[in-house]
Formats: sequence, structure tokens, C-alpha cells
Amino acid sequence: MNFHRTLTGVFLALTLSDGIVSGAQEPARPNFVIVFTDDQGYQDVGCFGSPNIKTPNLDRMAREGMRFTDFYVGQPVCTASRAALLTGCYPNRVGLLGALGPHSKIGISDQELTIAQVLKTRGYATAIFGKWHLGDSPQFLPTRHGFDEYFGLPYSNDMWPNHPTAGKNYPPLPLIQGENVVQEMPDQTQLTTWYSEHAVRFIEKNKDRPFFLYVAHNMPHVPLHVSDKFKGRSERGLYGDVIMEIDWSVGQILDALKKNGLDEKTLVVFTSDNGPWLLYGTHAGSALPLREGKTTTFDGGLREPCIMRWPGKIPVGSVCHEVAATMDLLPTFAKLAGAEVPRDRIIDGKDIWPLMSGQPGAKSPHEAYFYYWAKHLQAVRSGKWKLHLTHDYDHPDPPGHDGKPGKYAKREIGLALFDLETDVSETNNLAAQHPDLVARLQALAAKCRDDLGDSATGQEGKNVRPPGKLVEKRVAF
Amino acid sequence: MNFHRTLTGVFLALTLSDGIVSGAQEPARPNFVIVFTDDQGYQDVGCFGSPNIKTPNLDRMAREGMRFTDFYVGQPVCTASRAALLTGCYPNRVGLLGALGPHSKIGISDQELTIAQVLKTRGYATAIFGKWHLGDSPQFLPTRHGFDEYFGLPYSNDMWPNHPTAGKNYPPLPLIQGENVVQEMPDQTQLTTWYSEHAVRFIEKNKDRPFFLYVAHNMPHVPLHVSDKFKGRSERGLYGDVIMEIDWSVGQILDALKKNGLDEKTLVVFTSDNGPWLLYGTHAGSALPLREGKTTTFDGGLREPCIMRWPGKIPVGSVCHEVAATMDLLPTFAKLAGAEVPRDRIIDGKDIWPLMSGQPGAKSPHEAYFYYWAKHLQAVRSGKWKLHLTHDYDHPDPPGHDGKPGKYAKREIGLALFDLETDVSETNNLAAQHPDLVARLQALAAKCRDDLGDSATGQEGKNVRPPGKLVEKRVAF
Repeated sequence: MNFHRTLTGVFLALTLSDGIVSGAQEPARPNFVIVFTDDQGYQDVGCFGSPNIKTPNLDRMAREGMRFTDFYVGQPVCTASRAALLTGCYPNRVGLLGALGPHSKIGISDQELTIAQVLKTRGYATAIFGKWHLGDSPQFLPTRHGFDEYFGLPYSNDMWPNHPTAGKNYPPLPLIQGENVVQEMPDQTQLTTWYSEHAVRFIEKNKDRPFFLYVAHNMPHVPLHVSDKFKGRSERGLYGDVIMEIDWSVGQILDALKKNGLDEKTLVVFTSDNGPWLLYGTHAGSALPLREGKTTTFDGGLREPCIMRWPGKIPVGSVCHEVAATMDLLPTFAKLAGAEVPRDRIIDGKDIWPLMSGQPGAKSPHEAYFYYWAKHLQAVRSGKWKLHLTHDYDHPDPPGHDGKPGKYAKREIGLALFDLETDVSETNNLAAQHPDLVARLQALAAKCRDDLGDSATGQEGKNVRPPGKLVEKRVAF
Repeated sequence: MNFHRTLTGVFLALTLSDGIVSGAQEPARPNFVIVFTDDQGYQDVGCFGSPNIKTPNLDRMAREGMRFTDFYVGQPVCTASRAALLTGCYPNRVGLLGALGPHSKIGISDQELTIAQVLKTRGYATAIFGKWHLGDSPQFLPTRHGFDEYFGLPYSNDMWPNHPTAGKNYPPLPLIQGENVVQEMPDQTQLTTWYSEHAVRFIEKNKDRPFFLYVAHNMPHVPLHVSDKFKGRSERGLYGDVIMEIDWSVGQILDALKKNGLDEKTLVVFTSDNGPWLLYGTHAGSALPLREGKTTTFDGGLREPCIMRWPGKIPVGSVCHEVAATMDLLPTFAKLAGAEVPRDRIIDGKDIWPLMSGQPGAKSPHEAYFYYWAKHLQAVRSGKWKLHLTHDYDHPDPPGHDGKPGKYAKREIGLALFDLETDVSETNNLAAQHPDLVARLQALAAKCRDDLGDSATGQEGKNVRPPGKLVEKRVAF
């Protein structure tokens, strides 16, 4: 009596034939890897012109992929920049500005969707190894926002009692795994190594399924730390050693992809969260030839070295000069993974696959890119033109050295129009010669002000969303 | 020199004030628990009229919540029913029919979104403990479809070498944790206990964050197994013992919720995947007063005992007689969690919160409910009227006993109209008296046939989606 077997057989045959008659092809689901460094400058990669730091792995990645020369982050400071990367929105849109401290009362909102959550809808394994900085309470941690795995620091590595000037205000620096503190005051010389080891293990573990790996190095943010592997090896001092170790880490990841046969299934993106923290002098990177660095809205603050690699998909040894941004990664990844971009809210990022794939004549999808410092709209770029609205900014004078910060001097720039194609260093103000361009860029700024607000005019943005607020204790509902 | 502290302070104050000025209230995110049993009949719960099985915990749950008397599953068989529950769609919509066997070549599609994936967009912790049955290869497992944790059997507990009639065709039954086989041929007497222990631990671990817990018991599907805790305790024999242990398990979960202060934050849903497998006689449950059981489209096959409990939200001791279905849970949970229901595809389920919350005069959102057996459209219900289209069905004759199946006799029912309000047992054919109603229900069936197909007419559905196909080896893209 084989009734049962027969019945099962019928079902199987039935459903199998369902599968076979359908010709629909499911979209491929490539793997995504983002390597995101902290305070690394525009020039701090060999192929971006570093005179004294060697980055053979990043240079190879560029040879095998595409360099983006006009690639922007959301704001020139940590939390804001990471909010833009992960939500695909201007930081002002999602209410996350500045750099959150320990025990922050706000963090990433439950209402926002991170890249990890978008990719979860397509069955991705997801992990972040490194710095989070979108809130350190459990409700804000990566594990609550789409990441299966987390190992790293919840905020900046200088927010600890060893800080040269503000130490006593900080609790012991926690190293978190999942949602648990596994060490306090970890040995920072091991961070880059640990993150790399986690990344390699994650790749190996998930080699047979689609994954999203976000490696968010704490380095080269001060205090600089490097393992013995690279100590003293660079001609650029400790800062150079640290970058060399990050470059090694990129090599480890690329090797793991190759070893597991994932090269052609994996898009790898490398960039930094904002420009160099020039206040730290010898312990800061360089954004040259760009002007200024972190905390300013000159291009040295927001324009980052960016390399993308995906053999067979991204043209090898190519360069893209169009404006693109970290916030574009969410919609681009979503498109590549066959996931939906949220449609019930504004997502500022755009699909930049036409740029990445080297489509002939592809143009930046951004009519304008807006430079905010916190809630202050300070500049706007459209095409090659950048207009600074009058604003002050902090210039290191003098810069510090050997891990100690210098002092900032307040400076001001008036209305200033720069041609970034011929004047990448923003030195030659052409506002007087081009009143028409100034007016056009001012009109774009006015539209943005209406949308996202501007503390300079006291305007509230019409389309901003609140950050997540810390819920000390969940109340009954 | 406290520059750094001051700077951080400014950022913190800035972002804090962002939080405070906003009055927007984020929607609450209640916890969701689904307890889903296997082949339990409509009558196999005390408060649904069992004459000889005591279920004090389910009865308490009903006193503290709402009983649904007209609650339907997607089809009267395992895989199809689970597909409907988890995707919010008719099984035919998502291409999953029958009961998949080991090493199935199809499974849940990467294109579909499960309840777990929908809730992941709102930061839920997610787990399934128990039976999956939407594909046993890694690409089909729960961990690839939105669940953080999985512990259980990938398919039915009778698909093993110990099966009385079809054993040699089955590989050793695997018990899976995550994506790894942790035991072969596990001791089935412990399954209900193990699943309950996992559920309680999961609740405790996630008491401070929103979670979705899906407890999918393998019991009371044959082969029946019970632990020593309940062996011999029921007056209904082994089947009754097994139900008593499931009832105990529900009690464990309710206790864990209470102990962790989660009663008022948690919606608990209890139901079964399909009607009793009457072929197994003494080892089957009872669907009385409904006609027939599993594998048929009489109400005994698809209409299940259902209880929902959420203190403070669902009226206590209430009863809902409106048509609702497992496929309604996805859109209802999404609404309650503030998540988006996918809008790029047809989702058949509807928001039944008006029914659950006891809104006065709330009506079923389903104009019609369709009864398929595999691809054969066999009946349609609208309001209290149910029309059977001519079809045959399997009736146990004789039924088996003590774990051995009986034999099915093929029977046929012609066009038949039943008034389910006065004739819940589908015995009194009123088709001749109500040609207008017959015509109306036939028109609804015709519309459905166009949409979802019908093997009786050879029609393909216009809006069906393919299941996931097994990818033996990922190809480069």
C-alpha cells in the first residue's frame, strides 16, 4: 500500500511542472560589500594621488574597477554621513546630524529602512563589522535595523576615557557583538584586524547565498592605532601605517571573494565617511587638492575617494567624473537585487547603475547636490558649478600633532561661485562674472531650503522626518 | 582645552532638540506570535466543542480573546497552507501546492515576501520553531526568507524511513538549527517540548524589542508522538494526549509573555494548517460538525479552530463569525507594525483588524473565498453561501487505526449550494431552489479562474507567480 508515496509524488510532479512551465527569470542577487573608512582624506589612497602612502590593494581594486572622482557623502561628520549611506537620504531628511555621543537619546528611527532591511526583503545575509554610530542603545543597534550580525564599536573610537582632552566624560568604550558588550576598552591596535577576520569569515560562511557585508573601519579616526603588522612601515608615520593596514584589510576581503569564487557575483564599494580631520595635523589625512576637510562644506569635507569593483559588470580601469553619492547606494543596490525602493517616503539617492556600468554618455542623476553643516545649508553644486552661500567655518590654526588636537579659528566665506572643473580647490570666486549661474544655484538652494530646512534662515523643512527617540521603557499600548 | 567635548556637546544638543521638537508619534510595534498546528481538526479544542480533549490553556486564551468560527486556511494540505499563511496569498498565486517531499526541486520563491521579511523592515526579531515545509534546500530555508532563527523539521514528520508504508523512499529525517542538520531521526516525543522551550527562550531574549515568533508544531500530524508528561492522560487516546501537550505548550508561551510583562504588547494567534487527516482513523482528529477533513474542499478540510488574544486590544470572550483567513495575517500584522504591504504584486489577504478589534458591524473583507485542491477550483463561499462545483474527493473507507492509514474511496459531489449558517455540515443542497445565487457564485468562480487558473477547465491563471526553483549551483552573472 503505497498511497502516501503516490500522493506525495503527485504533489511533487504537480509543483515541479509549475516551475518548469514558467519562463520567468528571477533577477540575480549579487553580493554587496561596502568598506567605509573614518576620516580618510581624498588624497589618502595611492590611486587618488597620495605622495607617501602605498595602497596596492586599493590601487588594484581601481584597476579592476572604476574610480569615482566626484563622489560625495551626506555631511562632513560621522553620524550624519552614516545615516545618509544607510538610509539613502540626506541626513537632514532622517533627523540624524553631527556625531552622537555615548548614551544618545536619539538614533536611527524605526521608521527608516536601511540598506540591510531593503536587502532582507530579498533574502540577503547581512552583517556590519566596525563602527555603527547611529545610536548605541539596543533599539538603535544594527541588529534592530536589518543586520544579522554586528561586531564593533557603537560610536567613535575617541569617545573613551583615554581621550586627551575630554576623557572623563566618557564611559568605558564598549566593543559589541550582537547586542552584548563583549569587552570594555578593547585594544584598538587590533580593531582593523578583527573586523577583517570577521569579514572573511562572513564571506566564507555565506558563499552560497546572497550577502551584504558592511565593513566600517574605526580607523583612521583618531586615536590612531595599528597592529604590529604595519607599525612603522609607512613613510607617512602612524597615519600612513594605519592606511596601509586598511589597504591590507581590503586585500583580505578581495582574496576571500576570489577564493570562494565570488568575484563576478560581488560588487565591492570602497569610500570614506568624510574628509580628514585636519585639526589633528600629523594624525590627520589629506584631502588635497581639495580645500579644507571634515566639519567644513568645502569639497575636502564631503568629497571622498571612491572605488567600485565588480568584474564583468563595471568596466575595468575606468573613471567616473559625474556627481554621485553614498546615498545613491541604497536605490542602486535595491535595483540590482530586485528589491523595492521604499515608495511611501522621499529617498534622495538615485540609481547610479548607468554610471557604474559605464553606459556611454551617462550623466549624474543629481540636478543639484546640497552641502549642509548640521541644519545650515552652506553650498550647492550643479554640474561643475558650486555656489557657497555666506557661512563661517572652522579652520585649524594651528593644527595639532601626535594625537593632540590643535585649535580651530573661525573663518568666513561670502557668496562664492567656483568652477570645480578648472578650480577643484575652490579658490577662484567667479560669482561676479556669472550672476545668472548664481541666481540659478540660489534658486536650487531655495527649493532645498523649503524641502529640508535651513538654520540660516530659520526655515523648517517641509519634508523632514524625526529621528528615533530613545524609549527608556516600553509602555503598554 | 575641552574643544572636543564641547563640539560633541553641540552635536548632541542639536540632535536632541531635533527629537524634542518633533511631535510625531511612531506607531507601536506589537509582538506577534503564531501557533500553527498540523492536521488538528475544527473540533479538537475544548472551546470548539471537543467532547473528550481538554485544552485549558486554549480555552483560557479564548476567554481572554476572540474565537473565529469561520477562519480558513489556503488549501487543505500542508505546503500550500503554509505558503498562504506566510505570503498572504492563495497558494496558487505563489506556485506552492500539495506537500513538498525531501530534496524538493521547488520551494518558496526569493521574489515572495514572508511575514518575517515584512516585519524585518520594522526591526523585528524573528524566529520559527517547528515545521517549515516551503522547501528543504538552503535557498528555501527560513533563514533565507526573513527568519533570524530556525529550529525544527523542514517537512512533515512522516517523511522518514519509519513510515509504515513508504519508508524506504525517505532519507533520514533531519532536525535543523539555522541551516545545519543537528540531528538525524530525532526523538519525535520531544518535538513539542523542544519547540516550546525554544519559544520561551526567544521571548525572554527579545522581551525588550519587537518580535515575531512562529511556532509551527509538527503535531498532531501522524506519526503521533507525545512526551511522558502527557502520555496516557487523555480519554481520547494518543491523539488526545498530543493535543493536551500542544495546549500545555500554548500555556508555556502565555506564561512567558505574562512573566516578561508582554501580555498587552503581544498578539497571539492560534490555528491549524488544515483539517484532520481522517484517513488515519483513531490517530486523526475531528472536524465535526464540519464535513470531511484534510485533502477535501469541504469545510472540514480548510476551516480551522482559530483563537486570537491581545489583552486591551481584542475584546475578551468575543466570537467572530465573519470569514477570515490565514492569508489575512500578513497585511494585518503589517498594518499593526507600521510596515508596508508589498504593492508591486497581488496580495490576497486583507486587513482584518476591524474584525479582530470588535469594531461594531465589521464585515469580512472577502467578497468571496475560494477553495482549491491543488490547481482545481472546487468551491466558492460568499457570505453564508457556499457553492461546490462538480468535483470528486477522497473519503476514507475504511479509515485506518493506530498509526496505519486506511484507504480512500473516490466520491463525487455535483453542483451543490449550501447555506453554511443553517447547514454547517454541507448536507442540504439548495442549488435547485436558488439559481440566482448559483449564478452569482459561478460568476465569482469564473473571475477567480481567470485570475488563478483552474485545472478543471485547463485555464491558466493570468496572475500567478512561479515558485522558487532549486539552484543547484549559482552561475556567474
